[in-house]
Amino acid sequence: MRFELSKDFLEELRLKIESQDLPWIKDQVLELHYADIAEVLDKLSSEEAKFIYFLMDEEVQADVLMELEEEVRDKFLASLSSKEIADQLENLDSDDAADILGELSDEQIQEVISQMEDDEAAEDIVDLLNYDEDTAGGLMQKEFIQAKLDWPVDRCLVELRRQAEDVEKVYTIYVVDDINKLVGVLSLKRLLFASPKTKIIDLYQGKNIISVKTSDDSEQVAKVMEKYGLVSVPVVDLQNKLVGRITLDDVVDIIKEEADKDFQLASGISEKVESNASVWRMSRARLPWLLIGLLGGILGAQVISGFEGSIAKIPALAFFIPLITAMGGNVGVQSSAIVVQSLAKGNNQFGSILSKLSKEARVALLNGLLLASLIYGIASVFENATLGFIVCISLFIVMFFAAIFGTLIPLILDRYKIDPALATGPFVTTLNDVIGLFIYFTVGMFLYDV
Amino acid sequence: MRFELSKDFLEELRLKIESQDLPWIKDQVLELHYADIAEVLDKLSSEEAKFIYFLMDEEVQADVLMELEEEVRDKFLASLSSKEIADQLENLDSDDAADILGELSDEQIQEVISQMEDDEAAEDIVDLLNYDEDTAGGLMQKEFIQAKLDWPVDRCLVELRRQAEDVEKVYTIYVVDDINKLVGVLSLKRLLFASPKTKIIDLYQGKNIISVKTSDDSEQVAKVMEKYGLVSVPVVDLQNKLVGRITLDDVVDIIKEEADKDFQLASGISEKVESNASVWRMSRARLPWLLIGLLGGILGAQVISGFEGSIAKIPALAFFIPLITAMGGNVGVQSSAIVVQSLAKGNNQFGSILSKLSKEARVALLNGLLLASLIYGIASVFENATLGFIVCISLFIVMFFAAIFGTLIPLILDRYKIDPALATGPFVTTLNDVIGLFIYFTVGMFLYDV
Repeated sequence: MRFELSKDFLEELRLKIESQDLPWIKDQVLELHYADIAEVLDKLSSEEAKFIYFLMDEEVQADVLMELEEEVRDKFLASLSSKEIADQLENLDSDDAADILGELSDEQIQEVISQMEDDEAAEDIVDLLNYDEDTAGGLMQKEFIQAKLDWPVDRCLVELRRQAEDVEKVYTIYVVDDINKLVGVLSLKRLLFASPKTKIIDLYQGKNIISVKTSDDSEQVAKVMEKYGLVSVPVVDLQNKLVGRITLDDVVDIIKEEADKDFQLASGISEKVESNASVWRMSRARLPWLLIGLLGGILGAQVISGFEGSIAKIPALAFFIPLITAMGGNVGVQSSAIVVQSLAKGNNQFGSILSKLSKEARVALLNGLLLASLIYGIASVFENATLGFIVCISLFIVMFFAAIFGTLIPLILDRYKIDPALATGPFVTTLNDVIGLFIYFTVGMFLYDV
Repeated sequence: MRFELSKDFLEELRLKIESQDLPWIKDQVLELHYADIAEVLDKLSSEEAKFIYFLMDEEVQADVLMELEEEVRDKFLASLSSKEIADQLENLDSDDAADILGELSDEQIQEVISQMEDDEAAEDIVDLLNYDEDTAGGLMQKEFIQAKLDWPVDRCLVELRRQAEDVEKVYTIYVVDDINKLVGVLSLKRLLFASPKTKIIDLYQGKNIISVKTSDDSEQVAKVMEKYGLVSVPVVDLQNKLVGRITLDDVVDIIKEEADKDFQLASGISEKVESNASVWRMSRARLPWLLIGLLGGILGAQVISGFEGSIAKIPALAFFIPLITAMGGNVGVQSSAIVVQSLAKGNNQFGSILSKLSKEARVALLNGLLLASLIYGIASVFENATLGFIVCISLFIVMFFAAIFGTLIPLILDRYKIDPALATGPFVTTLNDVIGLFIYFTVGMFLYDV
């Protein structure tokens, strides 16, 4: 039923492109869903992709263009003239067109815009380019359907038919007053079943209208749409005038990106990096955390060097250094991951810090007890009972403190408006390494000397 | 504009509930958006929440109920009689009602179902209970709007008006043939602008219809809806008969949960655990990774003990153990995080493993060169040039291998259908610890002996 891209299909397609077998291509490729066509083009060479692209209808072209992988799309657009790009833009939604233009140089933008035939569309796009791409203004599209309060249903239908040509997906009609202020919404369903002379003012819903401001940041928009279960949200300016709308499919990408970013931050990668970024960019994104790790390692070396005498006397003390640091790191990351996720869900307002801390501490005590007993047995057999006892006691203490720091650090970062996902990775592990070593050798010195 | 829950508001509300100040509550709470009311109820005691809940209209009750936090909702439902639960279910969408019933014991389910007055609704819910909750069947709702191919538009409108009462949000009308097989879709927009005598068969879109099967798993559903940019997707049975629909807002939760799960797995937490889970459950979810970490630590101890003689001679060798293990771990986690994310996006089909490996290797060589030079300087000053050289060389080798393993392990796990997010955390760090120690001490022995 659903299309599955296979290697065999691609090979056959390449041959058919070479032999210019148009009937086959039309039947096997152009009939597909645009998302599937994009998937196919992603895998072809620029030349092959271009050949197929210009066999498609204009409307399908626009849909396919937006579904291509970013890298493929950039390459593809780079191979087009300004006039060709302008033609493509005319078929796109204004938000998509602005996104594509935003990637070009100011000079190119001017050139492309000047080549556009539809002045109104060009104006919309230019307007959208003014907004920061991480705000509601940068996300919104100018295509939406609006009705005035005093219209009767039949007039509304005529107007909508005119407006709806531009609007691919209609979910909700936005109702505005005389001076274009957003006053409510109206579902297509209600309109469908209303009698022709009923006025919009008697049909629309004007209570609890959820809208976002052009300046709201995109994460805020995602949270609002999620909380209120919206498929589209109207965007208003500072005077509450309706200027655009944002649809959920654009926001799903943000929700995913946000989760991806947290995951990357927690893994020690500081900027949003795609897996196809250049080696230089990837290297730069990772260096800050590696430097923190290096610093931690040097501090750790300093701690251990303070106990050089102990190691010279009892070299076996060194055996369990990796165990202590690894366990401190693991426990810290576990605790902080839970806190980071709970913060990301917005559970920070009333959740008491003390209750979180006490819970993490209890989990750590429980796990610490189990694992410390286990390692006591193993280390005693492995070396001797004293070393076993040292590892056992210090592991228990280290796990406890690791849980405390793992919980506190993201909470503190959040308090100071720093992304707490930072904490899950290098910060927590590095801190726990240093503290863990200190605890281990202190316990070691104390027990061997007693 | 938008409601912001504050501590002051909650305190005032509690007083007003105590004094039964109905006008204030009606004006300040019941007028809010249902998502905001739910946010308020989440913070109240069960008694207080119940008081407000039963002041609301039935329809708002249903909406609020589904917005409550799971824990709050479970507690709330537990305080209701079977009859009261049955009443609440009648106002819910069938998928929500089934979710709520699914939490109860078989006995309770029977009791509640028998108390429901709307037999058709009860039947729908019972039917939905048959599906696994992680499949399209478990996600779908029975409320959707369908039209037959041979209906004219005016007949369609009459039928839709009847059907639409149950369907809160209408996005798309599904078109079926005589025996209820899904043959296409029709947007409300097209219906709105069609003349009354046009037949559906001349209006509907029957090409490239995307549907999911009841048995498709929910991640699959999320991927399909995302790929094809759908706000709702029809669900069909094995005979392609239309049995339900799934809306994007239900799927957004899955997308988020999936990201959360990956994050937790990568942080060494094996089951999906909410931050409000019990200490026992949290402890159990974390133990497997801690045991792997412990095992790694013991293996590490074994490796170091093999070099006991070297440490006895040169205790300073022990100083840089944490640096080597930490850097190996960090680099490994960074590499695997990129691979895990790229796999999660489905980029595994044609992406060549060799190109990923070579890129990660190049990033590691570049970062390794920088950091190894840096540590050479620092360690030489800190101790002596030989030790500096040992740390420098082994750090470089360790970073290189850590990147290779960090890339390969998630790819291998994915090949064997194991969730690659597992790899980002404990697996990679533990493996890199052990290998890193081996490299470090081998280089150390070699250079000190030469």
